[in-house]
Amino acid sequence: MASITIIDIAKMCGVGVTTVSRAINNHPDISEETKAMIMKVIKENHYVPNNSARNLKRSASKTIAVLIKGITNPFFNRMIKVFDKEIQRKKYSFILQRVDDNQDEIEVAIELEKEKRLKGIVFLGGNFSHAKDKLEQLTVPFVLSTIGMTPGYEPHEYSTVSVDDFKESYKMVDYLCKLGHRKIAIITASMADVSIGRLRYEGYKQALEDNGLELNEKLVGRMKENIESYSMENGYVVTKELLESGEDFTALFAVSDSLAVGACKAIFESGKSVPEDYSVAGFDGLDITFYYNPSITTIRQPVEEIAEETIKVLYDLINKKITHAHKVFPAELIVRKSTIEPSR
Amino acid sequence: MASITIIDIAKMCGVGVTTVSRAINNHPDISEETKAMIMKVIKENHYVPNNSARNLKRSASKTIAVLIKGITNPFFNRMIKVFDKEIQRKKYSFILQRVDDNQDEIEVAIELEKEKRLKGIVFLGGNFSHAKDKLEQLTVPFVLSTIGMTPGYEPHEYSTVSVDDFKESYKMVDYLCKLGHRKIAIITASMADVSIGRLRYEGYKQALEDNGLELNEKLVGRMKENIESYSMENGYVVTKELLESGEDFTALFAVSDSLAVGACKAIFESGKSVPEDYSVAGFDGLDITFYYNPSITTIRQPVEEIAEETIKVLYDLINKKITHAHKVFPAELIVRKSTIEPSR
Repeated sequence: MASITIIDIAKMCGVGVTTVSRAINNHPDISEETKAMIMKVIKENHYVPNNSARNLKRSASKTIAVLIKGITNPFFNRMIKVFDKEIQRKKYSFILQRVDDNQDEIEVAIELEKEKRLKGIVFLGGNFSHAKDKLEQLTVPFVLSTIGMTPGYEPHEYSTVSVDDFKESYKMVDYLCKLGHRKIAIITASMADVSIGRLRYEGYKQALEDNGLELNEKLVGRMKENIESYSMENGYVVTKELLESGEDFTALFAVSDSLAVGACKAIFESGKSVPEDYSVAGFDGLDITFYYNPSITTIRQPVEEIAEETIKVLYDLINKKITHAHKVFPAELIVRKSTIEPSR
Repeated sequence: MASITIIDIAKMCGVGVTTVSRAINNHPDISEETKAMIMKVIKENHYVPNNSARNLKRSASKTIAVLIKGITNPFFNRMIKVFDKEIQRKKYSFILQRVDDNQDEIEVAIELEKEKRLKGIVFLGGNFSHAKDKLEQLTVPFVLSTIGMTPGYEPHEYSTVSVDDFKESYKMVDYLCKLGHRKIAIITASMADVSIGRLRYEGYKQALEDNGLELNEKLVGRMKENIESYSMENGYVVTKELLESGEDFTALFAVSDSLAVGACKAIFESGKSVPEDYSVAGFDGLDITFYYNPSITTIRQPVEEIAEETIKVLYDLINKKITHAHKVFPAELIVRKSTIEPSR
């Protein structure tokens, strides 16, 4: 069925185009009766005025997809907002596609690419360790956002925008060591993780070594795989286990802020306090670290800048200005009330 | 260009379809050489295997849009997850469309409907007070989720799935009154609000009245319009003003949990404590109310059930099983450590 125009509606109603326009736009110079008649015809014919929401106008074939693993992770919320704004500014359409923890994001991307004739893809979250030939089936440009490492690929085969997870994690643990902590626990990803969880863990190990401290495997807490990763609940459960293990520690570094919040809760429930009994530090720079009681020491990622740069790199790839890019943003250590010198 | 099939690829490669399939699926019974050759042809011809991500298969014309005002509101995260799951289960495609605070969601919906040939729409968040004839331009079924009131419409003109915001708010304030509080402040929406903020405020007023307490306008804090609504920051700023006003109160009811978290932070910063100096209560049942220190008394909305029912109502509308529906779920008062009897 061909699209109905305002001219068709005017004809059907036996009025001029201006009158139809007045009806649509609630113009005062039209009788209620005429207006009602016109709106009835509009509705019956499923006519959608062309002038509504002009700023939303987009070409259906110009679509960017953002694939996100962990949609309940508040870290991504602000990024999504920036993606949406930047993509809209370029008059592209924006699809936000959630990927389940057990789904393969490349397969989802390939399917979406086929259906929606995508121009580009942003991958957000997840580990991103895929068979190389599967990745090669993706024919549109893509950028990994806040994911800095994909083992098995050459740097020229993909693009990333992120912080240096190793270096920033090192910065935090080094700070805890310099405060005087000698027994520093960590909550990090499972051994199988090959992405940010691994990098932040490597930063922890290196900082311990450079401060003359030995790694104590009993103080390495691993997120539970049956609980949402990087969540408050995961931090809560893992910290409970650490506390019950009887292995003493004076500081705890959680590789995400949500994990850190869960860790604090577990400590309070055990009758201990933060920071007097245990210093707790997070990573990401979520708002809640400011609002929590006590406020939580963290590494603040420049999320808005990362999101903006992600879209910039993606469009540079789409327009063939570049073949690949790896942009690394500095993050900031924010010292708050959850970390002090050890009391024992 | 017609779509390339696995048969075309097999012909180009001079092999059987089974061999192509083996190459795609990493089957062991194929030589690395043959596989590499086939994957090269696949890539050059932009062939996308049909069998990848079978569970994602959807008809392009069967699309549901979820329009969301306030995408950074964590309350919506879990709902989006359920929407996505339920819509995928029905083999429909799912578009998540963010609506700016200053955008008209109906205009956005009309535009989307035109572009994407939608089958149905879910509206999430916002006030939803629109001119009636604009709403009539929407020709596909829609459901308001967690929005229970649209002034100016007849109940048969729209569908809703929500809690009873008036009643649940009343429940919370009545609980605070019964604890012995006589001076109960509230943080709520602006005077102009005609939706959930208004309903929760009306519940507050009624509970005060039924407990023989007079409404003190000086204890009514209104969210700032230049700060994200229902956010921690808004709760923080408004509570600071309440504390600095010098008007005494012993309990504070914030109409969202995020507002309540911000309120606690403002109280701590003023050198006072929760709950000893001020009892604080929220609304929604976010996870953070459990993890906060102290844990926060709240009204828990059954978000998963509301989200599931929203999709059920939407499909009943699409399939013309019903003409409209208003489903109201009970919410639960969760008493935690942030509320105690007043000390003064």
